[in-house]
Amino acid sequence: MTDTLSRRSGGRAARRASRAAPLIDSLRPIRPGMSGGQYKPLSDADVMRIHQTALDALEQIGLADAPPSGVEYLTRAGAILGDDGRLRFPRALIEDTVARATKEITLFGRDPRHDMHLTGAKVHFGTAGAAVHMVDVDGRNYRECTVQDLHDAARIADVLDNIHFVQRPMVCRDIYDNFEMDMNTVYACCGGTTKHVGTSFTDPSYVKGALEMLHLIAGGEDKWRARPFVSNSNCFVVPPMKFATEACQVMEACIEGGMPVLLLSAGMAGATAPSTIAGAIVQATAECLAGLVYVNAVKPGHPAIFGTWPFGLDLRTGAMTGGSGEQALLSAGCAQMHKFYGVPGGAVGGITDAKLPDMQAGWEAMCSNVMSGLSGLNMVYEAAGMHASLLGFCHESLILSDDLIGHALRCVRGIEVDDETLGLEQIREVCLGGPGHYLGTGQTLSRMQSDYQYPSLGNRMSPKEWDENGKPDLLTETIARKQEILSERAAARFDPATDAAIRKAFNIHLPA
Amino acid sequence: MTDTLSRRSGGRAARRASRAAPLIDSLRPIRPGMSGGQYKPLSDADVMRIHQTALDALEQIGLADAPPSGVEYLTRAGAILGDDGRLRFPRALIEDTVARATKEITLFGRDPRHDMHLTGAKVHFGTAGAAVHMVDVDGRNYRECTVQDLHDAARIADVLDNIHFVQRPMVCRDIYDNFEMDMNTVYACCGGTTKHVGTSFTDPSYVKGALEMLHLIAGGEDKWRARPFVSNSNCFVVPPMKFATEACQVMEACIEGGMPVLLLSAGMAGATAPSTIAGAIVQATAECLAGLVYVNAVKPGHPAIFGTWPFGLDLRTGAMTGGSGEQALLSAGCAQMHKFYGVPGGAVGGITDAKLPDMQAGWEAMCSNVMSGLSGLNMVYEAAGMHASLLGFCHESLILSDDLIGHALRCVRGIEVDDETLGLEQIREVCLGGPGHYLGTGQTLSRMQSDYQYPSLGNRMSPKEWDENGKPDLLTETIARKQEILSERAAARFDPATDAAIRKAFNIHLPA
Repeated sequence: MTDTLSRRSGGRAARRASRAAPLIDSLRPIRPGMSGGQYKPLSDADVMRIHQTALDALEQIGLADAPPSGVEYLTRAGAILGDDGRLRFPRALIEDTVARATKEITLFGRDPRHDMHLTGAKVHFGTAGAAVHMVDVDGRNYRECTVQDLHDAARIADVLDNIHFVQRPMVCRDIYDNFEMDMNTVYACCGGTTKHVGTSFTDPSYVKGALEMLHLIAGGEDKWRARPFVSNSNCFVVPPMKFATEACQVMEACIEGGMPVLLLSAGMAGATAPSTIAGAIVQATAECLAGLVYVNAVKPGHPAIFGTWPFGLDLRTGAMTGGSGEQALLSAGCAQMHKFYGVPGGAVGGITDAKLPDMQAGWEAMCSNVMSGLSGLNMVYEAAGMHASLLGFCHESLILSDDLIGHALRCVRGIEVDDETLGLEQIREVCLGGPGHYLGTGQTLSRMQSDYQYPSLGNRMSPKEWDENGKPDLLTETIARKQEILSERAAARFDPATDAAIRKAFNIHLPA
Repeated sequence: MTDTLSRRSGGRAARRASRAAPLIDSLRPIRPGMSGGQYKPLSDADVMRIHQTALDALEQIGLADAPPSGVEYLTRAGAILGDDGRLRFPRALIEDTVARATKEITLFGRDPRHDMHLTGAKVHFGTAGAAVHMVDVDGRNYRECTVQDLHDAARIADVLDNIHFVQRPMVCRDIYDNFEMDMNTVYACCGGTTKHVGTSFTDPSYVKGALEMLHLIAGGEDKWRARPFVSNSNCFVVPPMKFATEACQVMEACIEGGMPVLLLSAGMAGATAPSTIAGAIVQATAECLAGLVYVNAVKPGHPAIFGTWPFGLDLRTGAMTGGSGEQALLSAGCAQMHKFYGVPGGAVGGITDAKLPDMQAGWEAMCSNVMSGLSGLNMVYEAAGMHASLLGFCHESLILSDDLIGHALRCVRGIEVDDETLGLEQIREVCLGGPGHYLGTGQTLSRMQSDYQYPSLGNRMSPKEWDENGKPDLLTETIARKQEILSERAAARFDPATDAAIRKAFNIHLPA
């Protein structure tokens, strides 16, 4: 069949060449911020029960361990401090907060081309995490990851169309001082990509230093505040239902500095959250609602992402697992809760438990990525490169994820139904006295680029072509692509004066 | 985090051992026939427009090339034969047929444990196709496939829980006589598995021989007719909008012989169907509606599966591609049309364009499988083992698909929301004076088996464990599993007397 068609279709080489050229934006079959929401794992009644149970938990159980400043902000807003030290949240306080919270957020890139508009069911995919290992694919080895690995990850992500943001995916294990590690993380990410960056801070006092660097990069505090291109990934709770005291203080400092906050609740179903999917979503929702009250108590309307990140657990071993079907359901269910509240939200997708970019890695990463996308999750974190249940990051996997996520985004785009796409006239012309096939119709040719997403490294050769081309191996080709990307000069590099100013103020570990 | 939890969780080895034992049915987290439908790529209005356009196409364009017998059946039912030789279908004829068609079908296994009840949004996954190559993973090679390869595929599928049926996935390239090939296909499949089998026949006259063999296997015609365990995969149309004359005659003979029919419309979007997803669904729907009229004109209520199988095309080359996002949308959109008509339906999932079971194979197979499952497709054909856009079949990929499809089925099962799963009381107990974690709660332990799906070959070790275990390689482990399965005696083998009777009547190529 394949061969027959190939012979039949003239101009194949020309079509291939025309398709290999970069597409103008209006013709791109996929782009950041396509709208999902066609997949709804929860019924409306389910969503309402989860909401009501989260309100019950906030009203009756509440959260412990808020810092003194948080207690002040929250009680002033209407939360009630119990004798047991827990802050409890009346239903009306939650409802009022949700009503007033910012519903539309722009996460800026250093380059405005990369701005992300978080609203409705618009979907974006990017990296995130805190891997401690670098996956060395060529050597089949796990080693400690370094600031250079992190910088390289940012550089690679910068050139991949379907990686929309770069939240720090791994920690710099070669920098032992926590302040230096945090500052170098900002430098390595922002110096590698002009896309939006996310990061965390170990200590509240470090935020000042980071802001100083960001003002330098932006060209002044006013410019930074106008378009903050870094957000704070903030684990403000230690599930179940406890504030993370220091992280809350970090959050207050970031709000003060004009940095958007990702309210990250990372419970593990069966360990730090209920083992049931519904229960884990309830708890994450309750915790993030408390976080939303906190942010809006500090500064009404400050941009905050509702970061319900429940993770799965392998209950046989008690070890985390991020590549399961349960994980995909957790994230998709959370996305529906975000839509219910109308607030921009994020959760995890794309994680694999596989140690290498093998078939397991492919099926696990796709399952949660495509389900997150179809559920309309605004921010799919950890979507690319995360292996071994988040312990390892892999550059080759990141590169392949550009194809994988592109594929998922094509599915998110969905099926257009209108007079033209229904094609009755075309069917009539082809069948009644026409050629009996659609290969040469104007509609087929015009839609070759706008409707179809083509993989970059994914291989579509016939077995014969594959054989004639020396049986290309996916990972070998990907390693070559990585080397190609990293051999080019990073486009996101700071100008020399800025770089010198940063290096004067901070101990930057990456070579100039 | 992983290590902390591992240390904390006592009885890990015991839990692992208890989970390794086979689960009793009531505890199985997944099973055949779970209900999907939470994902709807089409709005209700879209579905109605596709339906109306399909009716327009049937009324105005109709289908050419029906055999004389078909013309008689169909005109008697109410179709109109035009001067151009095309049969056109009035809307009322279609609507009446849909109203009267069988809405619930049981596809029987030789073993009743494997019966499949096709109704609503119940989902089943299995093999199918007509691959001409066997993928030799160890040698990274494509070679012609044989009847032994086919038999081995059936034997492997027989022991995999998440492969629910075995439609012939490849053709016996070592048998040159078409009649012998068809008979040996039935023998190789039925002799390898007691699950439901699907196959096709090259010539109408071959059906008699196949029925003779099936009567022998069943122990008499009455027993065959009571529980027909083989269905006819029938390409009754040559898209666009032409009946396949001989296949229609095969279909009539199968209906006469009591064999369920899969009405298979396999258009290729951009070549033999419109290039738009909506248009390809319109045409496949129209063609299968015509097929449904045909079947019900021959024998009212005969079990027929609505087999809208539109395939994707790489428009740059004109070559088929089965691993794209567009393919996943085609199949999921079709599933919604089946639900609209309330008839049991099938389409394709799980195909990859990759040549080997690599990361690309994983992401492509998962995408269409999980989307087909979530859309509630009753029969997901080609779900396992199909490579190189259907040209190659791979035993290792089939084995790995048991994990992949199990994962997808867990997603199809979805999220249960009730008082117990919402977990408010559990959250309260854990947080207010409790242990602060859920590891030892009764709910966590009781749900370890019933709620969580565990991969069999998919690897969840930590990098440290992986290293200590000699860095197991997914494909090496899968090859070993294949050898283990094939070294055991096939449970589905016929008893010696039956086997002798079959061998007396037919030239069976497999050794006894």
